[in-house]
Amino acid sequence: MSRADTERTGEALGIIAGGGVLPRLVAEAARADGQLPFVVAIADGIRSDWTPYESVKLPWSRTGDVFPILARRGIRRVVFCGTISVRPDYRSMIPSPRTLMMLPEILRMVRGGDDSLLRAVAGVFERRGIGVVAVHSVLHDVLTPAGSLTRRAPDKRDDLALRRAAHAAGEIGRLDVGQAVVASPDRVIALEGIEGTQAMLERVGALRAAGRIGRSEPCVLFKAFKPQQDERFDLPSIGRETIRQANAAGLRGIGLSAGRSLILEAGAVVEEADAAGMFVIGTSKTAEAEAP
Amino acid sequence: MSRADTERTGEALGIIAGGGVLPRLVAEAARADGQLPFVVAIADGIRSDWTPYESVKLPWSRTGDVFPILARRGIRRVVFCGTISVRPDYRSMIPSPRTLMMLPEILRMVRGGDDSLLRAVAGVFERRGIGVVAVHSVLHDVLTPAGSLTRRAPDKRDDLALRRAAHAAGEIGRLDVGQAVVASPDRVIALEGIEGTQAMLERVGALRAAGRIGRSEPCVLFKAFKPQQDERFDLPSIGRETIRQANAAGLRGIGLSAGRSLILEAGAVVEEADAAGMFVIGTSKTAEAEAP
Repeated sequence: MSRADTERTGEALGIIAGGGVLPRLVAEAARADGQLPFVVAIADGIRSDWTPYESVKLPWSRTGDVFPILARRGIRRVVFCGTISVRPDYRSMIPSPRTLMMLPEILRMVRGGDDSLLRAVAGVFERRGIGVVAVHSVLHDVLTPAGSLTRRAPDKRDDLALRRAAHAAGEIGRLDVGQAVVASPDRVIALEGIEGTQAMLERVGALRAAGRIGRSEPCVLFKAFKPQQDERFDLPSIGRETIRQANAAGLRGIGLSAGRSLILEAGAVVEEADAAGMFVIGTSKTAEAEAP
Repeated sequence: MSRADTERTGEALGIIAGGGVLPRLVAEAARADGQLPFVVAIADGIRSDWTPYESVKLPWSRTGDVFPILARRGIRRVVFCGTISVRPDYRSMIPSPRTLMMLPEILRMVRGGDDSLLRAVAGVFERRGIGVVAVHSVLHDVLTPAGSLTRRAPDKRDDLALRRAAHAAGEIGRLDVGQAVVASPDRVIALEGIEGTQAMLERVGALRAAGRIGRSEPCVLFKAFKPQQDERFDLPSIGRETIRQANAAGLRGIGLSAGRSLILEAGAVVEEADAAGMFVIGTSKTAEAEAP
């Protein structure tokens, strides 16, 4: 435990929690570090049970209430994590009074892709004196290391596919669209939009079943850090489900931006990938920037 | 009829035909011009009935046979048109002797996206003394004009969405992936990979039904010319089916690269769009290049 962590012992940490396994992992890590996690469930996170953690559920119409809630508990630091599949539609809801007060600020924010939205949200917190910390400053050992993590490493054709996918993923990331791309050595197969990685992988599986991907056309998934992204939130991530989905889509393996992406429950992820004969590899910034 | 056309009267034209309505429109136009169309059906085109035109069906394993077939008929000019949804998997087929002879050349070609594939195929024809002509040099009045074609024109928010979609479509086109993008004024919704425009529009419809697209989030489709593309083949195109699919996905309208995209059966397309209250607009090169 570093000195910074020690100083945080007993301090409250707000977890602005969407869906998926990540927010719970963050809460567990914060508690293990001696911090006091308080979960503010939003979006997909509202459907989860947050026991044993203290929590509140905030529908989009009550977004503005987050600040009095945090203030009442003396919370000065928050971490954003988890998936948000449905964006707020403020034009067709009845906001709480606090939310209504913030509505002009909120509506300006909703412009743009996920990354610009998250940066705007972070700004709203910071202007009110609440610090926004990165997931990996709470949840240690979750950043993807460089190099192959699995028994199987990419072969020459896989390397070509990884380079092609990484390059395309960087480009769509620059447009603040998705983070994920599936490619073969010959061509890009699928680009992630708002549907998310899981839906994209299901699409790849369907294309393969329909004969639209050759039997001898090895495909890989790459999830890339967006070049202009704030490293504190929405880093690309994979977990055990991603391995299962990628395997079902017939992929040979997965590449990630080393140091700027997350592997959730890495031990289980590598075990699952090894069992499926797949590779998982962290690649350097320079390798990603290269056109294939 | 221009002088060039007159000189072509009585001359044979090879139509290398994939799926969809385009190859038949090309054959009709060629015949109306006094040329003698001969259809070489490949890929998705093999499933069509080509009566009343002279035709031959070539599975991928017999690709190499196209040259003796054209030579026997004295055909010195071909036009490529129609969709190819399944790419050849030469590694797992038994090729005809002629195809086998060409296999090294063919396998080099299969590398890359659709555009690099088509350029390579055109090169193979040209090296054998066969000219490759553009669809719109046979089928006149099919190029998208600049400006709005429909009663409804895009409003200010639609314009924003069109700019966002056009910019993203140009970027993925540069990567030689898809040509089509769906966007709202706020963000990019979907990017076309190998699944094609129809499957992408079905995905957008499903995202809307699932509440992943806001009720007050107007979306548009843009199909863009790929910056590095050869204008002779695979220009982005729409037809009546595209209008129906876009309407089913809840889109407000469609934008296309003026002068570098095709509207098949334009009269019927505009009629169908007007009935659905949608816009169809051709936009200039400069408008596309701008970031939104």
